[in-house]
Amino acid sequence: MISIKTNMIVRFICVVLVVLCSDGYHGYIVDPGPTIKATKGEVWPKPQSQDKYDSYFVVRPQVFEFKVLTENDCSLLENAFSRYHRILSNDYQKARNNFDFETNLYHKKLWLTDDNYIGYLDTLNVYLFGPCEDNAYPTFNMSEDYLLVLSNGTAELSSNSTWGILRGLETFSQLTYLGEDTITLRINSTLITDYPRFAHRGLLLDTARHYIPLDKIITTLDAMSYNKMNVFSLAYHGRSKFSLCQSKSFQNLELQTRTKWKEKHPERLQPGVLVFIKDKNLPPLKWAMGRVLEVHKDADGHTRSWGVAKPELLTECYDNETKTGKLGPIDPTKNNTYSFLKELFEEIGETFPDQYIHLGGDEVGFECWESNSDINAFMKANDIVGDYSALESYYIQKLINIVDQLNSSSIVWEEVFSNGVILPNKTIVHVWKDNWQLTIYEVTESGRNALLSSCWYLDHLASDGDWLKFYACDPYDFVGTEEQKQLVIGGEACMWSEVVNQYNVISRVWPRASATAEKLWSDENASDILEASRRLEEHTCRMNARGIGAQPPNSAGYCL
Amino acid sequence: MISIKTNMIVRFICVVLVVLCSDGYHGYIVDPGPTIKATKGEVWPKPQSQDKYDSYFVVRPQVFEFKVLTENDCSLLENAFSRYHRILSNDYQKARNNFDFETNLYHKKLWLTDDNYIGYLDTLNVYLFGPCEDNAYPTFNMSEDYLLVLSNGTAELSSNSTWGILRGLETFSQLTYLGEDTITLRINSTLITDYPRFAHRGLLLDTARHYIPLDKIITTLDAMSYNKMNVFSLAYHGRSKFSLCQSKSFQNLELQTRTKWKEKHPERLQPGVLVFIKDKNLPPLKWAMGRVLEVHKDADGHTRSWGVAKPELLTECYDNETKTGKLGPIDPTKNNTYSFLKELFEEIGETFPDQYIHLGGDEVGFECWESNSDINAFMKANDIVGDYSALESYYIQKLINIVDQLNSSSIVWEEVFSNGVILPNKTIVHVWKDNWQLTIYEVTESGRNALLSSCWYLDHLASDGDWLKFYACDPYDFVGTEEQKQLVIGGEACMWSEVVNQYNVISRVWPRASATAEKLWSDENASDILEASRRLEEHTCRMNARGIGAQPPNSAGYCL
Repeated sequence: MISIKTNMIVRFICVVLVVLCSDGYHGYIVDPGPTIKATKGEVWPKPQSQDKYDSYFVVRPQVFEFKVLTENDCSLLENAFSRYHRILSNDYQKARNNFDFETNLYHKKLWLTDDNYIGYLDTLNVYLFGPCEDNAYPTFNMSEDYLLVLSNGTAELSSNSTWGILRGLETFSQLTYLGEDTITLRINSTLITDYPRFAHRGLLLDTARHYIPLDKIITTLDAMSYNKMNVFSLAYHGRSKFSLCQSKSFQNLELQTRTKWKEKHPERLQPGVLVFIKDKNLPPLKWAMGRVLEVHKDADGHTRSWGVAKPELLTECYDNETKTGKLGPIDPTKNNTYSFLKELFEEIGETFPDQYIHLGGDEVGFECWESNSDINAFMKANDIVGDYSALESYYIQKLINIVDQLNSSSIVWEEVFSNGVILPNKTIVHVWKDNWQLTIYEVTESGRNALLSSCWYLDHLASDGDWLKFYACDPYDFVGTEEQKQLVIGGEACMWSEVVNQYNVISRVWPRASATAEKLWSDENASDILEASRRLEEHTCRMNARGIGAQPPNSAGYCL
Repeated sequence: MISIKTNMIVRFICVVLVVLCSDGYHGYIVDPGPTIKATKGEVWPKPQSQDKYDSYFVVRPQVFEFKVLTENDCSLLENAFSRYHRILSNDYQKARNNFDFETNLYHKKLWLTDDNYIGYLDTLNVYLFGPCEDNAYPTFNMSEDYLLVLSNGTAELSSNSTWGILRGLETFSQLTYLGEDTITLRINSTLITDYPRFAHRGLLLDTARHYIPLDKIITTLDAMSYNKMNVFSLAYHGRSKFSLCQSKSFQNLELQTRTKWKEKHPERLQPGVLVFIKDKNLPPLKWAMGRVLEVHKDADGHTRSWGVAKPELLTECYDNETKTGKLGPIDPTKNNTYSFLKELFEEIGETFPDQYIHLGGDEVGFECWESNSDINAFMKANDIVGDYSALESYYIQKLINIVDQLNSSSIVWEEVFSNGVILPNKTIVHVWKDNWQLTIYEVTESGRNALLSSCWYLDHLASDGDWLKFYACDPYDFVGTEEQKQLVIGGEACMWSEVVNQYNVISRVWPRASATAEKLWSDENASDILEASRRLEEHTCRMNARGIGAQPPNSAGYCL
């Protein structure tokens, strides 16, 4: 088939016989092979403390088992054991595929005569000292500490929390590697004491500027767990920035929403981010919570999402005292705006158990407000004539108060803090602009928690393996007291999707976000760059093997 | 399943309710929707001359047919008709999927009462005035001109060459679009006279720095045809840069090579770029032509590919007069180097019918040559003591002479020209460095053809939709006579794969290489930037719909 198709369309120049030997980008190379040689069985992010020895076990997935020692069943752990057993088996199966059974090297069991071989590892004993958290959700203060001991006679993973066990299982799986014989799965004697440096290790994924389908979101979640990241922020906002994240019940909401749309709008169902509707009164916000609703009125122009269901919430835009027919930002002058929002937040609180709601508040434009005489009259009455920032602050302030009344906590972009909105002490300020050291100083000096994203914008591209740029950033890298540093809860890598869609999202996020993951988990002095580069080379191949289409981190190379 | 998995690993912060309305990167936006609105039924690359009218046909793929009027069978065209019929049917099927048959709008045939509707287009008559080129290959001087007329009573595609018909079919397929009713496939009355501005419109893909599997190469070829590119350069070189492109017989060679490897080296077969071998004498270069052979000796170090089969071709490296055991670049001082290369080039000529061989010659390192006393003695005898560039020139000169003797033509990187190697007039100089305007001036002033890649290095990334940077480059943008400009044969977008693998190659190349494609096909004044942006938005969605995982070109948007 290929010859039929390509003959017709493309000349194949027989090309590029570069007969002298050098590498285009890295000078003369005597040894061919990868630029950065991958490690074997090293962990990403690097554990806080690790002793590793030359002696090794051979793991036989066909007999290997995790044995948990708790009083009650814990399906959360049982499911994790299944996942990791599958991962080990896949690695093993790859080894077996490489292996030719006619020559049958495996059955010669050459490792048995290797001095470093100390036996088969057929069981990992798992000790959970706390309760099984089957029905709990990950929380801000959850413990993720664990202890992993693999030595002659002992193979134990222990933790006070289920979350710690999960982190330890990930570490255990990463310690296994293919032996030099390419047919055995091995794991070295190792002692690991591990815990995260920061509580909040997040990834923000913008699925609205371009549609990202569910399977890519699930892949992202898988990859996050392989990198011990623990906060997923799904930025669900259309061009009009109505944004709500998905949650555990994502899939159901998605399906439910689709089905409902199909019932109501059979002629205009789109599988992507965009849903056309004909009836302005139909799309309740409940549905919008489940998916992006960027809503177009028919052919006569666009309104933004809320405007379709609740046009009374939005500001009417004017051109020289004539209504343009367009709707602008939320109208912050009307009481029913706030009663509506309170109701919405209550509903969100029921659906999403996390304590936090991200209220946004960045980069607001004022043109439509400026054009509207009712808005200006309100501002005059409130003594803020011409000060639209003050109007914005007024609005955000009321939102924050609503969230506070509901016993939730809010996260806001740094502008809200910088603009002087009075924030509850428990509000987290999300720092994203340049000059973040100063902002994070001021936020923590005010006694509030700070979350850093400034140096982890994944949409900022560079030509080379640019993870080093992300790896160079440390949230503690500002002048402040020890108390101030304690208020930095962590960071979030942000994948805004102006030029990202389902086809490049996974390879653009991974392994670049892995750099953020390690900076937020590991000790600040854990690695030198070369060591980290080699480990990330292995980790990227590991992600590839587990179905994460990560791009190469460094330079020329390959995965075995 | 998702709830089971994600509960355990990640906190879902309910996030980013950005309740005021602005777009983070483009200021205040009253109308939500895509930043750049896609065109409908516009062609990429833009035809040289096009008249388009409001009147339209409805295309019904279930009855539509291409009718060719030649004396003999032409399977090349018949196959193309099948492909394009499938493309039209897919587009149509998507429309049907969007459509709810209960409300059955289609059967109301609303277009029949539309003043612009001028009938069904059930046949495109295809006139090939030249011979069917079933058994020919695309060549440097092939004609790609075509004429397409779609008007009331006439639907004709005509060309003097098969290649022109193929280009015209692509154009025809791009002219179809989904009507506003979202259920009809339409095509407007159109008159197009079209031909390429440059003969050589290439894409170079480096499949050696990272392994790119066959299916991604086929996808790339498909995408090239959708962009009317006509030269595919597959840079097959390991870190040691032994590079040979694949050709029409790619698939067979690939399969054959795999099979042979499996027979000979069952224990070390890898599906990727790397092949381990145990027997140093086994890999004949014939196989190397079929795939990348980056060859590792067992565990005792690496040699580069040719060194395994033909170690006598390479320079032995020394460290203070002691052999290091490593092999460097080709040894240009030995006669048998050249007799071997002549034999190789003859073989390449039999396998690859294209007239050109790319000899490379860029960025050579001299360290190993410097360390070798035999090399230095040869240089002394030839009166070029210490001038390793002169030695390189000596070598390249001999290669070029061999190619010349074989009645082939060579392409060389610009260094070969700049270093003063005496080149036959027919040698094409491939310009890739900065300051290309001066180089291209000098090359064409010497009467030689030039090929431009400097401004189309796809590995150079920028954060935004950076195709505009590629689009701004014009190969004629240098000061020179009309005769000099005629010597510029075109250009090649280059995808070097330091940080590119199978997971990001397609989205990184497309639609960025589409910018190159249009600059090389269309009239230099064909488009303003906004018009091109809107057309590329449509073209990207078109590629997506045809299975090309292109990334978004501009900013927030969606594909219908």
